[in-house]
Amino acid sequence: MKKLFIYLLILLPLAGSSQQRNGELVDLTHSFSQESLYWVTAKQFKLEEVAKGETEKGYYYSANNFETAEHGGTHIDAPIHFAAGGQSTDEIPLENLIGDAVKIDVSDKALKDPDYLISIADLKDWEAVNGEIATGSIVLFQTGFGKYYPDAKKYLGTEERGPDAVAKLHFPGLSAEAASWLIENRKIKAVGIDTASIDYGQSTDFAAHVALMTQNVPAFENVANLDRLPAKGFRVIALPMKIKDGSGGPLRIIAIK
Amino acid sequence: MKKLFIYLLILLPLAGSSQQRNGELVDLTHSFSQESLYWVTAKQFKLEEVAKGETEKGYYYSANNFETAEHGGTHIDAPIHFAAGGQSTDEIPLENLIGDAVKIDVSDKALKDPDYLISIADLKDWEAVNGEIATGSIVLFQTGFGKYYPDAKKYLGTEERGPDAVAKLHFPGLSAEAASWLIENRKIKAVGIDTASIDYGQSTDFAAHVALMTQNVPAFENVANLDRLPAKGFRVIALPMKIKDGSGGPLRIIAIK
Ligand SMILES: [Zn+2]
Ligand SMILES: [Zn+2]
Repeated sequence: MKKLFIYLLILLPLAGSSQQRNGELVDLTHSFSQESLYWVTAKQFKLEEVAKGETEKGYYYSANNFETAEHGGTHIDAPIHFAAGGQSTDEIPLENLIGDAVKIDVSDKALKDPDYLISIADLKDWEAVNGEIATGSIVLFQTGFGKYYPDAKKYLGTEERGPDAVAKLHFPGLSAEAASWLIENRKIKAVGIDTASIDYGQSTDFAAHVALMTQNVPAFENVANLDRLPAKGFRVIALPMKIKDGSGGPLRIIAIK
Repeated sequence: MKKLFIYLLILLPLAGSSQQRNGELVDLTHSFSQESLYWVTAKQFKLEEVAKGETEKGYYYSANNFETAEHGGTHIDAPIHFAAGGQSTDEIPLENLIGDAVKIDVSDKALKDPDYLISIADLKDWEAVNGEIATGSIVLFQTGFGKYYPDAKKYLGTEERGPDAVAKLHFPGLSAEAASWLIENRKIKAVGIDTASIDYGQSTDFAAHVALMTQNVPAFENVANLDRLPAKGFRVIALPMKIKDGSGGPLRIIAIK
């Protein structure tokens, strides 16, 4: 009995590191290129080659510059994006970007209705099957639209760009009511979605953004590969480029399952 | 006995997640701003405000664009930076960016000699005290220069910029011999350093870069807060912005200790 207890004490810490090591890593990030999708009014990603090839000194050398809006491709919305006084990108605590996560798959409904709004009922339906969303979870929403990326017409609802294209955006999103329910009742750390915005394409008041960001809950947008995740039992690590006073920025997001 | 065994089976997975949860997170990243340090010939970081304040519709909104060289601030060098056919930023396997890490502190020597080259003897001295560097480790080098960031004169050796400033760079780095020794004998995943380059400032052949990158070993540069890490017994998660065909890019790097 005593021996087994000692054995237990030795095994416990080992379990921690081997579990992490053996967990499969899933990259939830679209790469940045000229194909990356941006909000129709935002500056797109552009890579400029500075050097590429053998140098006079005999070694190979390549380097680039780039320019981009903060909000495009797989990126984070920092709370200050939609909340005066909210955290900027560099101020979001790492603890809110790393943790146990769940995936709520609404693709059956959303793929049939590009203006679909994820409801409180969708959250309760998920919990009826999977159990309560644990306090402090990161909640990812799979609308199914991720499979259209980077086809702007299918993913955004329009391939037009500029101010007149805003009214033509059609993709699903999270309702403000469901966002508030998750904050109040499940104290979630962050949300993520496989569309261009946590609000649906036809939103004009960005009510889900406002509900989340006024409570310092960041959002991950244009998240990739959600179809490769189970409903629960995985962890997310979401590390944004640390832009001082940023309203968002490029995000590398991965899961360990 | 049987009961205790069942108890053990329940506790083992729990230990994994609670250990991760309880591990202290240390941000090893300098934030990007106009103060960020860049190679003297590279385009510096610039944030451009697009929107900031209350909108007509009643919600607050802020957003920015930015431009930057891939190599500046806390960033990654992808193998293709110094090796033809090497992995680009988006191609580096996540497995090489996450794992058990060690810190080799040479600040006693390097703070006295800004042209200091970390030697094989420094690696062996560390191992004599701490045991062999485990296969597949991420190896971080603390030169002590991190405390000078973002003071260019102290950190880089010069506050001048442009091609003529290159010869005035003075900061410590890793010798090519030590880089090769780590690859051949310890099969390391990646290296990191609290200076602007894994090669020392006076290098003209970038031999450490070439030694590492031809073997697809990436380097993390301008790493912050290394003084907050122990010599061993911590993990590193280093997630770069996923730039397609990139030679490097902004890196968010953290430790769990
Ligand atoms: Zn955004
Ligand atoms: Zn570099």
